[in-house]
Amino acid sequence: MSDMRTVRGMRDLMGPEMRIKEYLMTTAAEVFRHFGYEPLDSPVMELWETLSAKGGEDIEAETFKFKDKGDREVGLRFDLTVPLARISASNPHLPKPFRRYALGKAWRYDRPQRGRYREFAQADVDIIGSSSPAADAEVVLVAIEYLRRVLGSDYIIRINSRKVLRGLTEKAGVPDELAFQCFRAIDKLDKIGRDGVKEELQTRGIGAKQSEFLLDSIELRGSGTSILEEFASLLDGSEIGLEGVDDLRLMAEVFEESGAKGFTEFDMSLARGLDYYTGPVFEVDFLGKPKVGSLGGGGRYDFLIERLGGPPTAATGISIGIDRLIDVLAARGADDLLEIGLDVFVAPVKRPMVKYAMRIQNELVRAGISSVVDVMDRTLKKLLEQADNMKTKYMIIVGQRDLEKGEVSLMYMSTKETRQVKIDEVAAELTRLVKHG
Amino acid sequence: MSDMRTVRGMRDLMGPEMRIKEYLMTTAAEVFRHFGYEPLDSPVMELWETLSAKGGEDIEAETFKFKDKGDREVGLRFDLTVPLARISASNPHLPKPFRRYALGKAWRYDRPQRGRYREFAQADVDIIGSSSPAADAEVVLVAIEYLRRVLGSDYIIRINSRKVLRGLTEKAGVPDELAFQCFRAIDKLDKIGRDGVKEELQTRGIGAKQSEFLLDSIELRGSGTSILEEFASLLDGSEIGLEGVDDLRLMAEVFEESGAKGFTEFDMSLARGLDYYTGPVFEVDFLGKPKVGSLGGGGRYDFLIERLGGPPTAATGISIGIDRLIDVLAARGADDLLEIGLDVFVAPVKRPMVKYAMRIQNELVRAGISSVVDVMDRTLKKLLEQADNMKTKYMIIVGQRDLEKGEVSLMYMSTKETRQVKIDEVAAELTRLVKHG
Repeated sequence: MSDMRTVRGMRDLMGPEMRIKEYLMTTAAEVFRHFGYEPLDSPVMELWETLSAKGGEDIEAETFKFKDKGDREVGLRFDLTVPLARISASNPHLPKPFRRYALGKAWRYDRPQRGRYREFAQADVDIIGSSSPAADAEVVLVAIEYLRRVLGSDYIIRINSRKVLRGLTEKAGVPDELAFQCFRAIDKLDKIGRDGVKEELQTRGIGAKQSEFLLDSIELRGSGTSILEEFASLLDGSEIGLEGVDDLRLMAEVFEESGAKGFTEFDMSLARGLDYYTGPVFEVDFLGKPKVGSLGGGGRYDFLIERLGGPPTAATGISIGIDRLIDVLAARGADDLLEIGLDVFVAPVKRPMVKYAMRIQNELVRAGISSVVDVMDRTLKKLLEQADNMKTKYMIIVGQRDLEKGEVSLMYMSTKETRQVKIDEVAAELTRLVKHG
Repeated sequence: MSDMRTVRGMRDLMGPEMRIKEYLMTTAAEVFRHFGYEPLDSPVMELWETLSAKGGEDIEAETFKFKDKGDREVGLRFDLTVPLARISASNPHLPKPFRRYALGKAWRYDRPQRGRYREFAQADVDIIGSSSPAADAEVVLVAIEYLRRVLGSDYIIRINSRKVLRGLTEKAGVPDELAFQCFRAIDKLDKIGRDGVKEELQTRGIGAKQSEFLLDSIELRGSGTSILEEFASLLDGSEIGLEGVDDLRLMAEVFEESGAKGFTEFDMSLARGLDYYTGPVFEVDFLGKPKVGSLGGGGRYDFLIERLGGPPTAATGISIGIDRLIDVLAARGADDLLEIGLDVFVAPVKRPMVKYAMRIQNELVRAGISSVVDVMDRTLKKLLEQADNMKTKYMIIVGQRDLEKGEVSLMYMSTKETRQVKIDEVAAELTRLVKHG
């Protein structure tokens, strides 16, 4: 047994899990395209000055960062948003709105644990250039349609707005410079509970009375426009807070009209850790088993492109974590559904027949039929076993004597019945059988 | 204008080039599956001890190598073969033959130049566990079928065998320990010509008489089994050399039978730089314009899995470089052919209509129809322009007055004719129009 391993916190994907991943990626590309998004692929590494422009507490600690041989500091991207922001910044004349999707990997130097990998794949959609909350609603609807297809139900997208949170701290009388400290504490409500958040707020220098107001407020959550009336009355008098509620209201109306209300929830405690969000924020919670935590999230980031040297540009997007979806679908046994049997196994009886077997295989592949040729010089008995294991529908046996008559044997694997077919007609005959039964 | 750039030698792909890349990747997956290969995905980085086990002169200089935060040496993979060999070594019980394909990026710290990137995508097929030259023939046929689909013609796969080369040095009387030096010199024939190779051989310590024999021999090249008779008579008396010719002969017979003879050439000068090859070696040359050099290559590597700590395991494979194919197809204007117009543009007249527009869009997407909703609050005039630019087939205009009657306007973009349709029927009506014209 080899002691060669993967790098810690990373994994190989093959067999059932890889089939699931391919399904998840292919479906994502299809859904995103149908919503009018175009694909974009960027290098896995970025200059450190690009990555660090994003800000936030833990960037340096969580990034795979190194010097290239020219002694420039670079890092593996930790998300697909920063590369998009760099591209938008350096291509200010891209027609707007620019809808792009990206399917790719990102890397974070987290502590490895269940459902958390140091290398993970993401499926992102973003709209660059629209400041309308309709754009925020759209990216959430795209995520919902994708999750509907691959997951069915068992998930909810929680939504809030950084403007709502700013309004909240304003109403609580928290000074501006401490607002972000509040968001960080509030965001932990689900994890550490009300008392935990209270403590966090205290540690971060928020007074008792202010804390009390915040703690009462952040338990507000619910679906549809009615909960937003409660948001509004709480934020009465705060211009930015009410602006935030207006954005969410348009989103709520869109969700109600589109039948997506049941998959969304407005949650006053949702803040999300990253400091670049400026408006609506989203988080996708998986409600079923296994408990994998968040399936993704996103939000509006109207300043990031400017921070990367571009013109002021509105932007919003959402990201779905593919690796956790793989784990969920694998636990559900979805790989069984995705397993596709082989159409045809071509068995040359002795090596000199292999060239005829490969000729037939090539004709089959060109007709869109999957087929395999034996390259192990195995006996026919062994090949029948192998073909059964591969759930093969038909076998073609290419033997010397048949060939002298210009024929091969065609076997129906379900019954093991065989009949002779002319070698020049076997590809056409199998095409008919595979495609029309 | 931003000064944020990509890392040197790497590129973003979007628009036409990205459409081409998607087409190349999707087609590769389809062809490879039909030949019975299964997908595998491994982390982009490997432990340095894994990467360095491959050997070869330039590994250290050409690898993006760094220490992780746990101070372990790691590197970005420079090909997709070493990860596969690691996986095969640590999973000795994988059923054989194990046919895997991989579509992924690799990284090399080369000097950036036309057609050579420091980050590049590859499409690989490999067969683990078969020592038969039928397996070598198969991977070449897979590459030929793929290139036939995406490129048509304009390419040739040159083939030789390390055994043939060992036979050649044996016949020349070159000592074993200098054989690999010979291969390196010989491999440059196409680049530096006969005189250049002569000089190289001299520098590497090969005598004049030995050089003369090698130089006369390596100009042998041609298609089909007949050229292999010349290989054989040249290598008469060398057991390993003739074994190599036998392998190539089986391959030649397969190519002739499968109609692939015209895409292959046996070339005594082909050696390939990597030191892990043990049998047949392949190189894909692009013959058209722009001159991008090699499109890929591969060969048999029967010792690599053992070197990585696994049991002795035969293996062969071929790798196609996607980035050079992108450059070739982009130069041919293939992106025009791949451009798909948008089916439907849904135009809400004023923001309050956006929710109805998004409801319609969601119904369309679920029916498999691509559609976009305006999120820029643009005027109808602007939206018509935008829809024309996007080559949209139909526009739905959602206006207050129509809606009060439960209707929307459906516009045929080619003629700009419009008619009224019930909002509840518009998705079904468009599905009919888009799918059946």
